[in-house]
Amino acid sequence: MGPEEFRAAGHELIDWIADYRARIPQLPVQAQVGPGEVAGKLPGRAPEEAEPFGRVLADLESVVVPGVTQIQHPGFFGWFPSNASLGSVLGDLAASGLGALGITWQSAPALTEVEEVVAEWLRELARLPASWKGVIQDGASSGCLVALLAARERATGYGEARGGLQAESAPLTVYTTQHAHSSVPKAAVLAGYGQDNLRFVDVDPVTYAMRPDALASALEADVAAGRRPAAVVASVGTTGTTAVDPVAQIVPLARQYRMWVHVDAAMAGSALLLPEMRWLADGVEGADSLAWNPHKWLGTVLDCSLLYVADPDHLVRVMSTSPSYLRSAVDGQVTQYKDWGIPLGRRFRALKLWFHLRLDGAEVIRARLRRDLANARWLAEQVSSTPGWRVLAPVNLQTVVLRHEPAGVVSGTGAVLDADALNAHTLSWVDSVNASGAALITPSLLEGTWSVRVSIGAEPTERRDVEKLWSLLQQAAGSLGT
Amino acid sequence: MGPEEFRAAGHELIDWIADYRARIPQLPVQAQVGPGEVAGKLPGRAPEEAEPFGRVLADLESVVVPGVTQIQHPGFFGWFPSNASLGSVLGDLAASGLGALGITWQSAPALTEVEEVVAEWLRELARLPASWKGVIQDGASSGCLVALLAARERATGYGEARGGLQAESAPLTVYTTQHAHSSVPKAAVLAGYGQDNLRFVDVDPVTYAMRPDALASALEADVAAGRRPAAVVASVGTTGTTAVDPVAQIVPLARQYRMWVHVDAAMAGSALLLPEMRWLADGVEGADSLAWNPHKWLGTVLDCSLLYVADPDHLVRVMSTSPSYLRSAVDGQVTQYKDWGIPLGRRFRALKLWFHLRLDGAEVIRARLRRDLANARWLAEQVSSTPGWRVLAPVNLQTVVLRHEPAGVVSGTGAVLDADALNAHTLSWVDSVNASGAALITPSLLEGTWSVRVSIGAEPTERRDVEKLWSLLQQAAGSLGT
Repeated sequence: MGPEEFRAAGHELIDWIADYRARIPQLPVQAQVGPGEVAGKLPGRAPEEAEPFGRVLADLESVVVPGVTQIQHPGFFGWFPSNASLGSVLGDLAASGLGALGITWQSAPALTEVEEVVAEWLRELARLPASWKGVIQDGASSGCLVALLAARERATGYGEARGGLQAESAPLTVYTTQHAHSSVPKAAVLAGYGQDNLRFVDVDPVTYAMRPDALASALEADVAAGRRPAAVVASVGTTGTTAVDPVAQIVPLARQYRMWVHVDAAMAGSALLLPEMRWLADGVEGADSLAWNPHKWLGTVLDCSLLYVADPDHLVRVMSTSPSYLRSAVDGQVTQYKDWGIPLGRRFRALKLWFHLRLDGAEVIRARLRRDLANARWLAEQVSSTPGWRVLAPVNLQTVVLRHEPAGVVSGTGAVLDADALNAHTLSWVDSVNASGAALITPSLLEGTWSVRVSIGAEPTERRDVEKLWSLLQQAAGSLGT
Repeated sequence: MGPEEFRAAGHELIDWIADYRARIPQLPVQAQVGPGEVAGKLPGRAPEEAEPFGRVLADLESVVVPGVTQIQHPGFFGWFPSNASLGSVLGDLAASGLGALGITWQSAPALTEVEEVVAEWLRELARLPASWKGVIQDGASSGCLVALLAARERATGYGEARGGLQAESAPLTVYTTQHAHSSVPKAAVLAGYGQDNLRFVDVDPVTYAMRPDALASALEADVAAGRRPAAVVASVGTTGTTAVDPVAQIVPLARQYRMWVHVDAAMAGSALLLPEMRWLADGVEGADSLAWNPHKWLGTVLDCSLLYVADPDHLVRVMSTSPSYLRSAVDGQVTQYKDWGIPLGRRFRALKLWFHLRLDGAEVIRARLRRDLANARWLAEQVSSTPGWRVLAPVNLQTVVLRHEPAGVVSGTGAVLDADALNAHTLSWVDSVNASGAALITPSLLEGTWSVRVSIGAEPTERRDVEKLWSLLQQAAGSLGT
């Protein structure tokens, strides 16, 4: 495809996207297909001859759109927001159009330096420590893995350059809670620590946050048993309930054992743009690394995750390679992001963040975040003040964890009389909400019983959409369960 | 930014990209900026207010374009091709516009199923084993890391679920060559094996390919010393010289020790579209995994790397997590790509591959690959038949490794009389070629002495561009060195 064909097709696609975004509210939120249905509509082999653009665009419309859950829908309250702001879409298009290749600084100086600048912009907006440096990764899963690899190498004195983890005599241990994101235990086992050396520290029964006293006891017991604490992963905003582990109390304990502190703020990082929310990050200046996904609530289109580190030199020592074909005269004067993570070849991801921040501006983004926080507080108030309904966890951010607890299944004092019936009721009314196409919410196990996460924060979601959702929840739960 | 502002700005950006692609041949290939120059042009803080699109576009033109090396230039012969075909750029724009979120199948069934379909299309085009299944990763570095993690867990019987690599008594060893890509040793140390347990098997002095007899000896010695061979990474098309390790001879040895065989065909995978090049993959049906980057020579815009595995169940067992908020009624009937790699949240990368293959068609792609192979053979012939010039490695693909060896520095029989002088000469004329802006080539150490890699295969590079390059090389080397 040459530039002129691209121009014509590109204009068509831009119009298609603008129209699509405008009509999303009319689409069902949840994907409307069963397993294999999309694949069944596609030919089994690649085309030998070029197809006209119109045919591809028609398939985008008829095959792909019904086959995706509409994350950009005002009725999307599932998982966490994953906003794809249109300014960032343009930035990502610019990156593709340029076709730049980030391997070394030399291969694309602007790719490196715009990334340094936007990472610094976001650090400053969130008031993270001034000495920290950031790098864009694909997601917080990779960020956590990179952090736990860096932690491992600090604990072993760069054992990777010798016998690796295989040569260590006393096992290294990692600490987090059961409420940490699934990527945390995954990172720990992929980094080689082993499930047996991963400690799930007890949480507070009301806030679901890590208990520092329980962490202290676990550390003492492990050290007494000859193990070596290597890292603690503190969640600032867990996926289940947006619980906030007390970083300020975790840091001194970690320091005592020379442990790495990684802060998983994948979702909550965006809230740090608001001065009134900076309590979330209390104590973070004592941490070693923090992951934050602008591709969630902030709204930079996937994939765009920031990993900040306090000591980039250590990270580079763990991650660097220097084959002759990648050396240049400026090595040492520039940042080589290939040595800040796993991939060598990197996309110009900074452009989407740069476009997004410039085309929206920080004030507009802050106003939207505040709108979502207020909507969550409003919903929580409705739920709390309605008989038979309960908010199950502190509403620290924009997610409300709730349950409808009908009389007969739950007693007047809140005791669960029949757990199976309550679970069946919850899953049933959630299914009916999701099947309606008007909204999407996520069931989630909380302390062994199904709860419902209503995660507010899709870019187009206004108060009226939350009001509609609340009616829908009551209707679905009421008509089925009482 | 709303849909209508996006529409207007999007049309401007599409026109800008079409114009930019058309004028790339007039731009200098190598980025024209020094360290810090791009960053110095950007404000230190994010804007509080939205900026007009025109200002952002103006910066794209004046700050970013001079700050990137023009990988899409007909004079780009550096590293390896990293083509960003305009059809794939449209596919990637569609992905951003949709704003879909790949976490589970449920979150975007089409994201999963289009990925399965295009991975199968490419498998079939390359005639890889019919039972293999593919997944899109960000790059071959991640692919290799995932493979070496899978290898580790096979060797330890899923030790990750117990004490991890820390609980193993006899060290696991990994085998590759010094010519393997830098991501291979990086993956081995990140996976925890340790540098001491990574073996660089001797290569053939002419082909630079792994010597199976040397592998056999290394395996015997390690087993005799109580070590446990876990994986071998065979390179099909090394970065330095496009050497091809003999997979067909490596596989039986690996099988004898129950080792994992990972094939790094990041660059060469694309050549498998050509029946006459399928000898590259001889024996690959006995391997366990293979990484191939469509974002290189094939031309699907970064980042798009395929990892094929023979046993997806094993990979899933190593990588899977199943938190309650990601469970659904269809688990078990569908592919959950979150369990095929490190990241949870995944972009709809399959769309760019789907658009690319449909908008170009396989025949056009094959013709371009054949053009590049013929151009490399042509250049190698010119070099070989010109006194003072030498081709230093077999031209297996589209890369010619060459050197100008002036009399007095190299004897008539090819012996290097003064290695320092030869290195200085090589680096000097390469610098002058690159500084000219007309072409970019990469110096690379070959057996301790600097050589020059001319990697042909940018999408717009025609024979006349290679002819111009050959004149330029002779002029640069001749005027400086003789």
